[in-house]
Amino acid sequence: MDNRTVGILGGGQLGRMLIEAASRLNINVGILDSPDDAPAKQIAANQFHVRGDFKDPAKISELASKVDVLTVEIEHVNTETLEALEKEKNIKIQPSPATIRLIQDKYVQKVHLSKFGVPLPDYKEVNSVEDLTSVAHEWGYPVMLKSKTLAYDGRGNAVVRSDADVSVAIEKLGGVSKGLYVERWASFVKELAVMVTRSVDGTVSSYPVVETIQRDNVCHLVIAPAQIDGAAAKKAKKIAEDAIKTLEGAGIFGVEMFLMEDGDILLNEIAPRPHNSGHYTIEACHTSQFENHLRAILGLPLGSTELKVPVAAMINILGSDTLQETLRPCAVSLTTPGATVHLYGKKESRKGRKMGHITVVADSIQQLNERIRPILDTIPPAEDGSRDADLAVTPMVGVIMGSDSDLPTMKACADILRDFDVPFELTIVSAHRTPDRMIEYAKTAHERGIKVIIAAAGGAAHLPGMVAAVTPLPVIGVPIQGKVLDGMDSLYSIVQMPRGVPVATVAIGNSTNAALLAIRMLGSFIPGYLEKMINYQNTMESEVMAKVGRLDEIGWEKY
Amino acid sequence: MDNRTVGILGGGQLGRMLIEAASRLNINVGILDSPDDAPAKQIAANQFHVRGDFKDPAKISELASKVDVLTVEIEHVNTETLEALEKEKNIKIQPSPATIRLIQDKYVQKVHLSKFGVPLPDYKEVNSVEDLTSVAHEWGYPVMLKSKTLAYDGRGNAVVRSDADVSVAIEKLGGVSKGLYVERWASFVKELAVMVTRSVDGTVSSYPVVETIQRDNVCHLVIAPAQIDGAAAKKAKKIAEDAIKTLEGAGIFGVEMFLMEDGDILLNEIAPRPHNSGHYTIEACHTSQFENHLRAILGLPLGSTELKVPVAAMINILGSDTLQETLRPCAVSLTTPGATVHLYGKKESRKGRKMGHITVVADSIQQLNERIRPILDTIPPAEDGSRDADLAVTPMVGVIMGSDSDLPTMKACADILRDFDVPFELTIVSAHRTPDRMIEYAKTAHERGIKVIIAAAGGAAHLPGMVAAVTPLPVIGVPIQGKVLDGMDSLYSIVQMPRGVPVATVAIGNSTNAALLAIRMLGSFIPGYLEKMINYQNTMESEVMAKVGRLDEIGWEKY
Repeated sequence: MDNRTVGILGGGQLGRMLIEAASRLNINVGILDSPDDAPAKQIAANQFHVRGDFKDPAKISELASKVDVLTVEIEHVNTETLEALEKEKNIKIQPSPATIRLIQDKYVQKVHLSKFGVPLPDYKEVNSVEDLTSVAHEWGYPVMLKSKTLAYDGRGNAVVRSDADVSVAIEKLGGVSKGLYVERWASFVKELAVMVTRSVDGTVSSYPVVETIQRDNVCHLVIAPAQIDGAAAKKAKKIAEDAIKTLEGAGIFGVEMFLMEDGDILLNEIAPRPHNSGHYTIEACHTSQFENHLRAILGLPLGSTELKVPVAAMINILGSDTLQETLRPCAVSLTTPGATVHLYGKKESRKGRKMGHITVVADSIQQLNERIRPILDTIPPAEDGSRDADLAVTPMVGVIMGSDSDLPTMKACADILRDFDVPFELTIVSAHRTPDRMIEYAKTAHERGIKVIIAAAGGAAHLPGMVAAVTPLPVIGVPIQGKVLDGMDSLYSIVQMPRGVPVATVAIGNSTNAALLAIRMLGSFIPGYLEKMINYQNTMESEVMAKVGRLDEIGWEKY
Repeated sequence: MDNRTVGILGGGQLGRMLIEAASRLNINVGILDSPDDAPAKQIAANQFHVRGDFKDPAKISELASKVDVLTVEIEHVNTETLEALEKEKNIKIQPSPATIRLIQDKYVQKVHLSKFGVPLPDYKEVNSVEDLTSVAHEWGYPVMLKSKTLAYDGRGNAVVRSDADVSVAIEKLGGVSKGLYVERWASFVKELAVMVTRSVDGTVSSYPVVETIQRDNVCHLVIAPAQIDGAAAKKAKKIAEDAIKTLEGAGIFGVEMFLMEDGDILLNEIAPRPHNSGHYTIEACHTSQFENHLRAILGLPLGSTELKVPVAAMINILGSDTLQETLRPCAVSLTTPGATVHLYGKKESRKGRKMGHITVVADSIQQLNERIRPILDTIPPAEDGSRDADLAVTPMVGVIMGSDSDLPTMKACADILRDFDVPFELTIVSAHRTPDRMIEYAKTAHERGIKVIIAAAGGAAHLPGMVAAVTPLPVIGVPIQGKVLDGMDSLYSIVQMPRGVPVATVAIGNSTNAALLAIRMLGSFIPGYLEKMINYQNTMESEVMAKVGRLDEIGWEKY
């Protein structure tokens, strides 16, 4: 865009994907890294590259002299040199070396975030065996002992399960002189992550909350957006943004969090750079994390962080024993609709090395499950032998009824939804007997991913209309026929809604049609359901035509 | 994926985007082109590149010796050399040199396609002034005189409007010895294009039909999918696929077509390579045209050609007098959600040179219009001073009524749809008086982009149910109150549908609710409408709360 040059410390896959984004904007990039065929160097004109260690002060200065802005693709850099360059030579560095320094030491990072009220798991510095023992007794075993620095992908962590483990764990991490701290065990239900961009003027903007699934302490699978309720997602987004607001400098930041059993969200750690949990943004969002990092550090307007597809998954390709085995998930991806393979140009496959990743986009979690399953099946299981479970499918249709006595009528509805492979939930919500539950259900349904509500009720049938009064979603009402009045009471109660609050009413007792109507609504936007509906209609037609044929054949008398 | 190397003749933007796709699959690429900083060479490791003219036999042989497959990013190549390499040295070349040769001569291309029954505008070889005059008299002026070879972006074409133009036109194109032919004037309503991939085994698979808008004979704007009816799109797809099936060799092909006033579709020309009308596929489809070209020529499985977003536009960035002016659309794009800038790394901006392109994705044509408008406004007008019109917005809601006497009731529905900014159509379709029209309407609505149908009828109100019997879309029925029976007749006729065919019935005469229900259905999938619905519900609540306040204030006696 403006012919400036960006220098990156580190030439791995993050640098490579930064260069992809930079090339499209005609931004020049220079890489500092030792190998001439570092992943990032392979795909950029070479006039700005520097060969050398990205911690070497002389080499850093050399790169700085060739570029307009310096940035990092790894936080384990030489912040002393960066701070000196910033101060003495007025070199622009983003994010700020002070921020990188703060993040490098995870204990300092936690002290900083606590000061600003960011929710964290309990933590405490460990300077002796006694420190660790006493805090473990206070919190209860297990606890997690961690190195303050250079800890990532499970390195620098040790689980302490009893008094017997204490000394072993401290020794494993190199002794207390290395700088250790202990964390209360986080019994989370899910791990979450949010990428946050911070512009030069300090405004932040965040990507959707995603779910990260680790295997043997390394990121294995990312699901965007996280399959959690809207309120939890909002809270996670806010915590991530608030945390990044407390830092200095521009760029993209990865914020990892825990969703706890009680619904609390605790921040785990921050990365001051593009992050594995944000790779999905290349195919799934309007602007990728890599382009937004460049825009942020160059002071260009930040791009939209919104998803452009309903759901996406990212699967890491970790090195196996042979390159052929490593590439098996890629081969399957080539035959998977919505899958995009990213290989990082690494010549050697080493066990556990990040060789590439695969992004898969889909219209629904259900379709995503179908698409990623054959890919996941080619990946070796975890060390404990476990394999990937199917992703929990969020229901798209909510079927509620005023009473369990409505179930015989509503079974036909459930049958149809199941036959059309629509993820749905079915429960009892009574307007008159559980009014609070009804309001809560109607208020949150759209945040939980529900697209249509089917509500059945008999007699003074208030449920469909009351739910419609609260939810912004379309509500389909099924009048249930009672013992008196032939269902007319429910029909009128459901259909004669006042101006402003519509209920889509179907025939008395006809819950089949309620399901078919819901599927038509889905089909307007999800081609797979439209196709199934067309097939269903064709089948109905041929069934009747077969009867026509039979009537012609055997005559009306014998029919 | 498999460590093979692809050689490309030509190092322009198409080569550059092929390399982007190749890098992600770890496919090595070598470029043959003169400049060392050719757009494609800038973003690939340089060990395979060859410096030289891509028509120079020695240089082509040199590149061929370094690669596993040769391909082209431009059809104006030296096919003699390619054919010799293929025959004598057994070099793999895709698409086949015979195909490239056939396509190079547009007249030969047409003769070939005619032989296979592909619909084309009438054409005739021109060997003399008399040839041209006589055919022009037969068809009527104007006619289009064309060079058989080296014609593109308006070059090699001359409009002949009268006898007086005949000699001038022939002379303009270099005389009959250059090889000329004449075409009947194609008074098309739209120009269409389809990208078709052909695998090594000859199976073809095509991307959506797009609409291309030329400015001063150069591609200016592409809209995907084309805003034409489903039947026309199907026909265009079939013609394009059939045409490509007649050719030899693997790769991606761009097929340009005319949609004529009478609904006919005529093939204009074929490009044997990635094409400007397919750039949108990078952001808008599962697999880009560039990746699919590579997959095709390497014999890998072809990727899905489906759109992953509802709509997309591609805007070409053509060189203006200064680089700053050229980049103005890009600057605006940086603040446009859904816009992605692709610059080609060309150092000099020359008038009309293809410097880059912008892809914009959106949820609807309406949103696309809003997003591209500020970008288009920064681009200089055509030579005749004309500017871009807004894209015709396809209606998302179809409002139909049995009679114009229903209009007073349905006005409220139209008001709401307009207030919520929903593109809709409103017309009369009578089940009893225009049954054919009703069937046709219901059959094609989903192909025209309609998402919901609202049908109003009174008395023996068959319209909603009959429409629902034919369309797979959700149908909302509005019972109209007649002079007798209080609207009960219409209510029962609409709501009491048999199992299998649902109608979403609203209260008698309550067309406001029909509109609100339709908007709720859209809102389940289009976040903008969901937000508007939530605001609408909040406003209703505050209006009532204001009345509560007033009643409290002045008391019920004075209220």
